[in-house]
Amino acid sequence: MRVLSGIQPSGRLHIGNYFGATRQHLRLQDEGHSCFYFIANYHALTSIQDRAELEDVCMHVATAYLAMGLDPDKSVFFMQSDVPQVTELCWILNCQCPVSLMAKATSYKDKVARGLPANMGLLDYPVLQAADIIIYDAESVPVGADQKQHVEMTRDIAGKFNRTYGQDVLVLPEPYIVPEVAVVPGIDGQKMSKSYGNTIEIFATDKQTTKRCAAIVTDSTPLEDPKDPDTCNVFALLKLFVEPAELDEIAASYRAGGYGYGHAKGRLAELVNEQFADAREKYPKLEKQPDYVRDVLREGGRKAREVADATMARVRDACGLLTHR
Amino acid sequence: MRVLSGIQPSGRLHIGNYFGATRQHLRLQDEGHSCFYFIANYHALTSIQDRAELEDVCMHVATAYLAMGLDPDKSVFFMQSDVPQVTELCWILNCQCPVSLMAKATSYKDKVARGLPANMGLLDYPVLQAADIIIYDAESVPVGADQKQHVEMTRDIAGKFNRTYGQDVLVLPEPYIVPEVAVVPGIDGQKMSKSYGNTIEIFATDKQTTKRCAAIVTDSTPLEDPKDPDTCNVFALLKLFVEPAELDEIAASYRAGGYGYGHAKGRLAELVNEQFADAREKYPKLEKQPDYVRDVLREGGRKAREVADATMARVRDACGLLTHR
Repeated sequence: MRVLSGIQPSGRLHIGNYFGATRQHLRLQDEGHSCFYFIANYHALTSIQDRAELEDVCMHVATAYLAMGLDPDKSVFFMQSDVPQVTELCWILNCQCPVSLMAKATSYKDKVARGLPANMGLLDYPVLQAADIIIYDAESVPVGADQKQHVEMTRDIAGKFNRTYGQDVLVLPEPYIVPEVAVVPGIDGQKMSKSYGNTIEIFATDKQTTKRCAAIVTDSTPLEDPKDPDTCNVFALLKLFVEPAELDEIAASYRAGGYGYGHAKGRLAELVNEQFADAREKYPKLEKQPDYVRDVLREGGRKAREVADATMARVRDACGLLTHR
Repeated sequence: MRVLSGIQPSGRLHIGNYFGATRQHLRLQDEGHSCFYFIANYHALTSIQDRAELEDVCMHVATAYLAMGLDPDKSVFFMQSDVPQVTELCWILNCQCPVSLMAKATSYKDKVARGLPANMGLLDYPVLQAADIIIYDAESVPVGADQKQHVEMTRDIAGKFNRTYGQDVLVLPEPYIVPEVAVVPGIDGQKMSKSYGNTIEIFATDKQTTKRCAAIVTDSTPLEDPKDPDTCNVFALLKLFVEPAELDEIAASYRAGGYGYGHAKGRLAELVNEQFADAREKYPKLEKQPDYVRDVLREGGRKAREVADATMARVRDACGLLTHR
C-alpha cells in the first residue's frame, strides 16, 4: 500500500505531534508499507515568511524524524520543495476545482480567524494537498477524523479530473482513519498546539520536561481529597503513555484521595522522558551532521521525483500540454 | 529591454489578434528588444479542457506566429508548459497575494459572467500571469490600456514579495502601453472575438475572406445615398489597413453617395488578402513541418528555462526553501 503524509514544519515537535501523526508514520513504515513522507515547506510559506525560521523548522523536523526512527531505507523522506512538479499539478488541478469547493474548506476560515493573512496560498492550500497526494499515486492517507475532509476534497478533485479527461489518469486515495489518534491536551487543557504556547516538547531535557509537566493546569483540590481523573489534564496525558493496568491503578488513586496532582505530574514526566530517551540521545548527534540529514532528503527527493515525473507525464498527456524537452 | 508577452491560444488567429497583439510582438522583435513570447497553455486550461483541442490551438498559434514573421533567432518563443518553474513561482506568489486583491480582478468576474466555470485556476489567473512576467525578469509588458491592471497587480505582488523578504529579489515590470492598439470590431460590430463568432480569420483563403467581409453587418442605406463612415463597421476595419490618404478618399466617397457598402467590403477583403498574403503562403508549408515548429519551441523552452532557473534559485533562497538536487 502506498501511504502518503505531509509533515507540517511549524516549530519544535511536541507530544501532540507525536500522538497525532509521528507515531502513526513510524508504525506504517514498520508495517512494511511504501511510505512517502515529506516536509511541507511550500504549505508552510502561507504562514512562515522568514527565511531563517523556515530553514530552521524544516531542519528540526527532518532531524527529529530521523532521531525518532524514520528509516530512510524503508521510507521515502523528502522536502516538498524538492519536487516542484507538485506545484504544476496544483495549477492543473486548480482548473478542475470549483472556487465554491474551496469556500467549504473549514481550515481556511479557521486559519484566517486565527489571524493568518488571507492570502491565495491559504485559500489554495487544499488543492496543493490534493496534488501532493495524487502525484505519488497514494492509495492511503493517514488522517485523524477531523482531517477526513482533505482526503474527500482530493477524491472530488481527482474524480473531476478523470471525468473531464475521460480516463483513469489519477488514483483516488482512501483516507486511513487512524483509530487511536487522541486529541492531546496542552498544559492549559486546550488542544496542544504551538500557536497556543501550551506544548510539551519532545526534544527538551528531562529537567525541562519535569518542569513543564509541573506547570499543567489542574484544579486546587487538596492532596488528601478524592479527585476525578476524567476531568484532569494530567490524567488525560497519562492515558497516552501508561499501560491499561497502571492507568486503572492511577484512576483508583485519584478517586481514593491522598494522591496529589504532583504525583501524577511526576509520573507523567518520568514516562515522557522514558518514551523519548532514545530519540533525545540521537537528536544532538544528528544535529551535528546536517550534511547527513540533507543527503537523506536529497536521496528521498530523487526517489519522489521519479514517481512524480511519471504521474506528470500521464497528466500532461491527458490535458494536451505539449512537451518539448 | 526585456519584453515579455503571453499569447492566448484560443482558436484560429483573426485580425483582432493581429492588431491587438501580434503586430506589436513582431514590431518589438524587429526593434531589437530581448523578446520572450510564450503560448499560454497553462492559462488555457481554465477554459479548454479537451486534449486534442488544446494541442491543436497551440500548434496553430505556433505555426501562425512563425508564418507571420516571428524569428526564432531574434525572439525566445516557447510553450508556457515547457517552463513548469512558473507554476512553482505562482505558488510562492500566492502566499504573498491577498485574496482581496484577486477579488478586484475584473477579468475573473467577466469570464464567469461569460459562462466559464468559476474554478480556482480562473481566480488565480492573474498570479500565474505575474509569475510569467517575473520569472523572466521582464522589464516591459506590452498591453492595451484595458490590460494595464494585470501589470499593476504584478508590480503589487512582486513589491510585496520584495518587502516580505527584505531584498530586491524580483524585478518590477513596467507596462508598455501600446498606443496604436485599436479595438477591432467583428463582423457584427461587437469587439472581434472568437467567443462571439464574429471574426475575420488571418489564415483563410482569399475567397473565404471576401465572403466573410461581405457578411459584415451594415445598415440598409441604398447605394446612391450618402453614408456616415464613422458609424460603419466596414469603415472601422478599413481604418486598420489603408493609408491615411486613401482613408480620406473613402470617407469622402461614403459622404458623397453612390458608393455602396459592397465597394467598401470589396476593398477591405483586398487589403486583408494583401496584408496576409505572405503569411498565408508560408503557413501550409510550416504546417507540413510540425517537427520544425516543435524544434523551435524546444529551443525556446531551453533558453527560457535557463532564465527561469536563475530567478527561481534567487526566489527559493530568499524564501528559505532548502534545495537538494
